[in-house]
Amino acid sequence: MSTFAPMPDPPYHAVIFSSQLGAETAGYHEMAELLADLASKQPGYIGAESLRDSRGYGITVSYWRDAQAVLGWKQISTHLMAQKLGKARWYDHYTLRVAQVERHYEGPEGR
Amino acid sequence: MSTFAPMPDPPYHAVIFSSQLGAETAGYHEMAELLADLASKQPGYIGAESLRDSRGYGITVSYWRDAQAVLGWKQISTHLMAQKLGKARWYDHYTLRVAQVERHYEGPEGR
Repeated sequence: MSTFAPMPDPPYHAVIFSSQLGAETAGYHEMAELLADLASKQPGYIGAESLRDSRGYGITVSYWRDAQAVLGWKQISTHLMAQKLGKARWYDHYTLRVAQVERHYEGPEGR
Repeated sequence: MSTFAPMPDPPYHAVIFSSQLGAETAGYHEMAELLADLASKQPGYIGAESLRDSRGYGITVSYWRDAQAVLGWKQISTHLMAQKLGKARWYDHYTLRVAQVERHYEGPEGR
């Protein structure tokens, strides 16, 4: 994915996913790649920004055209995770927040 | 700051700041620390989650009680940045998105 997600006219939606990986990450990276690829093909997908540090803490923000697109992605990703995860527990902890972007800016000015 | 920001009852606000640092970062880290410290003392501050990689790309999401808190922080941070920045150009590029969190979840379930 590109570093900065596109900025369509607001309102649009953001899904903010913060997570701490546990010690057992076998299969995780393949799953993350598969999910990112699948997300990018969903209706209403705008883009995503993602980072993970060496201690396994990560932030991924994905952007979606509207609430319907977020729900569509939730259904597909939940189903896929349930299929693939089985009893695996990649995440020690995660939070997922669904938000509506009201306005945005970019800079620095004059560039 | 702690890794995961608190999750008060929605709605609340998120400020999603993505940035790419340029080659000249003298003074940047002190400024970032000062801003984070100042933010944490503002009315309506909930918390923040932040990561930056070795190539200078970062994501910081700060959470605020309401739109008024976001505006208050915007005024103070803009003023401070203007004072301190001078002609410095730490950022090659940044995006800032203001969003209202509608709902949230945490997991994994059963822990």
